[in-house]
Amino acid sequence: MTPLARELEQLLAPGDRLLDPADCWTYGADNSKLHAVPDAVAFPRDADMVRELVRLCRRLGVALTSRGRGTGTTGAAVPDHGGLVVSFEHMNRILEVDPDNRWLIAEPGATNGEIQQAAGATGFFWPPDPTSSAYCTLGGNLAYNSAGPHAVKYGTPRDNTLGLSGVAGTGEAFRTGVHTTKGVVGYDLTRLLIGSEGTLAVLTEATLRLTPKPEATRLIQAVYRDVGAAARAVSRLMARAEVPSALEFMDHSAITMIRAYAPDCPLPAAAGAILMIETDGTEAGIEATTAGIRRAAEGEGCVQTLSADTPAEAQALWAVRKALSPALRTVAPKKINEDVVVPVSRIPDLIAGLDRLAAEHAIKIVNFGHAGNGNIHVNLLVNPDDPAELAAAERCLDGVFTLVLSLGGTLSGEHGIGLVKRPYISRELDPVALGLMAGIKRTFDPDNILNPGKAPGPA
Amino acid sequence: MTPLARELEQLLAPGDRLLDPADCWTYGADNSKLHAVPDAVAFPRDADMVRELVRLCRRLGVALTSRGRGTGTTGAAVPDHGGLVVSFEHMNRILEVDPDNRWLIAEPGATNGEIQQAAGATGFFWPPDPTSSAYCTLGGNLAYNSAGPHAVKYGTPRDNTLGLSGVAGTGEAFRTGVHTTKGVVGYDLTRLLIGSEGTLAVLTEATLRLTPKPEATRLIQAVYRDVGAAARAVSRLMARAEVPSALEFMDHSAITMIRAYAPDCPLPAAAGAILMIETDGTEAGIEATTAGIRRAAEGEGCVQTLSADTPAEAQALWAVRKALSPALRTVAPKKINEDVVVPVSRIPDLIAGLDRLAAEHAIKIVNFGHAGNGNIHVNLLVNPDDPAELAAAERCLDGVFTLVLSLGGTLSGEHGIGLVKRPYISRELDPVALGLMAGIKRTFDPDNILNPGKAPGPA
Repeated sequence: MTPLARELEQLLAPGDRLLDPADCWTYGADNSKLHAVPDAVAFPRDADMVRELVRLCRRLGVALTSRGRGTGTTGAAVPDHGGLVVSFEHMNRILEVDPDNRWLIAEPGATNGEIQQAAGATGFFWPPDPTSSAYCTLGGNLAYNSAGPHAVKYGTPRDNTLGLSGVAGTGEAFRTGVHTTKGVVGYDLTRLLIGSEGTLAVLTEATLRLTPKPEATRLIQAVYRDVGAAARAVSRLMARAEVPSALEFMDHSAITMIRAYAPDCPLPAAAGAILMIETDGTEAGIEATTAGIRRAAEGEGCVQTLSADTPAEAQALWAVRKALSPALRTVAPKKINEDVVVPVSRIPDLIAGLDRLAAEHAIKIVNFGHAGNGNIHVNLLVNPDDPAELAAAERCLDGVFTLVLSLGGTLSGEHGIGLVKRPYISRELDPVALGLMAGIKRTFDPDNILNPGKAPGPA
Repeated sequence: MTPLARELEQLLAPGDRLLDPADCWTYGADNSKLHAVPDAVAFPRDADMVRELVRLCRRLGVALTSRGRGTGTTGAAVPDHGGLVVSFEHMNRILEVDPDNRWLIAEPGATNGEIQQAAGATGFFWPPDPTSSAYCTLGGNLAYNSAGPHAVKYGTPRDNTLGLSGVAGTGEAFRTGVHTTKGVVGYDLTRLLIGSEGTLAVLTEATLRLTPKPEATRLIQAVYRDVGAAARAVSRLMARAEVPSALEFMDHSAITMIRAYAPDCPLPAAAGAILMIETDGTEAGIEATTAGIRRAAEGEGCVQTLSADTPAEAQALWAVRKALSPALRTVAPKKINEDVVVPVSRIPDLIAGLDRLAAEHAIKIVNFGHAGNGNIHVNLLVNPDDPAELAAAERCLDGVFTLVLSLGGTLSGEHGIGLVKRPYISRELDPVALGLMAGIKRTFDPDNILNPGKAPGPA
């Protein structure tokens, strides 16, 4: 038995720990498909126990990797340095919902869906809602600053979090932020921790800023001749004072794939790109808002727009988008899913460049995503049993990142760095800024025990 | 001649420096009325020169205080450690406006008004617009995270800045952030620098996120029997999906003062509190939006609401609010102007507590401010020639801060800490968080030359 296992046996009840490697196995993976078995898994029930666990790991000099439900795609939750995985399954309470002051306090293990449900009961929502909302956790949303489709109007977790509690790598517990929408006393540690992928502190509680639910929503499907026309429509839509509440994009490869997989999906023959545009507002104002946004979507290169006025009609329109994921799985057993971001006006250059890279490396690339933020999910479809194709995909990916940076973009909008993007971050980040980040890491975690080797932290 | 003066003579053209103490005198104050004469003033023209100046100060071990137009109220720009003041009068260019991607790049010496003008020419605005917009600078707005009345709908500088360039206390230049509305590669240094009052880096450039100008705005004046009724109306207004674009508050003391100073101002006798409510939206939607917001404002304790449909009518309604500043100056030559924040539902408790403190210490207190954020400007009116009253005001202020913290609030929404609030920050901030902030300060500025003794930095 390792010293870690021996001490955990003393510290935690049997239901709050796993010490057998076979039991620990499933806590070694996330959705990146990378895997490493931790030495032990702990399920703390409160912030005091989190503090004890951090102190224990620091004393023993072993790594501590925080974990939600493992829906991350970059390996940030994979314990490749061994040590302890801290899973938040037992710290998943909604502690307080205050509609008068528009906040909700929750533990990191609560799922995004549970938070939406608790907020929804009082007429509010928390704007970040990744596609995995039903099972991804608040802790993961904060670790990667994950937002999903509504960020175009409502922002990311950094825009929707008031304060945090956590434990630094020193083993000291601390609070950040305020319970108010303004506050400038001291440095902004709240936003520094959001997006830090568990490398600075283990979060134990978050105070989230709530937004009132809109009275009404509408959905428009707009079909374009080509991606350039769709991207110019995105620019027109984003120049209006009333932005859509979601502005999702699919390129021609995605449409080809949907046609092959779901030939009944009603799409005009000339469809070269699609925008799914959600609007929201008051009952009194929604028709005017939607009409204005639809007019902006219609223009040069627009083949047709369809509007859904009822939930059933909306569901029919979303069916096209929803056909994409099973189609992708059918075509290729492995997809390398990147979530690059470029300035909105550069989307056509991005898609054209991706087409060139796909041809050059003989790799199928399918693109869709959150066009209003310029956040495009670039999917390289590969056969994992073909080593030559895997190597070509790696070279292609390298070209994708070079392209994105040449367009003034960033390598990740909401998936983070984790393990898989570490080789690339020095291409994007200023070397002096990287040095400052390393200093911040040393301040919070002097012994480098918190998720070592992830995000911009040292190996 | 000091070594600093000698080197500045070599480094800078005569028009880009001040070395005579008489010339330096005016660069020693801000709107806190505190004053200290710097040893020299430099007016750099580009980021390279800023870097040279930081390196010079580091080598000589003298303090460097960055300065905009000195509209700050907390002494953050007062060079109480002597050394060099760096004034951004010659770095005030708008470098780029990109309406397609909704950004504007500017140097820190540009005024907020100049930025609004440049953004406005393409149909956009930058949401932060403090009352001093015409003469306060971007650098100061970023230093204090200053926002003004529209933050209730559009957020503060932290919500509206994409990236920064700056020079750390090490003398190294660096970039932070992205040109996109999403990005999670590396720690969020952009927001860490915003609100840090020049203690971590000297900013040389900022990429600001623009918002399309609304097509239409309307103004409602709502008069309440008492502050409790007004605060409950604020809660009702903030629970709606469509928030006002401004939600300003004046308490009974402010109304009494206006009555005395401007007896012609049309206010009902029963006025115990006033809300000024601005709405914005599309031409098509503004009437419905305004009607909905007006209905929410009307309710228990509401004496009357007036709505302005033309600019002239709006000006007449604003006249009441605008009478306040000259009234305050007439009543008392000195006001101690605090900008505390409490959760919106606690505004009645705050005002009741302030009434008690005013009576207890025999100090006149007038309250107004940004009610939608719970950000109340608390003004203690004192005669600076009366030492007993000044001492009473200090004791009263101490009570104000205790009250605010007991209500879950924060000591500053947008004025910052500077010199005047330093004695109080350890009451609000967690000691471990303060230690982490000190570590961040050491990382950015190991020799403590950047604005020493301000904000949470060491003395």
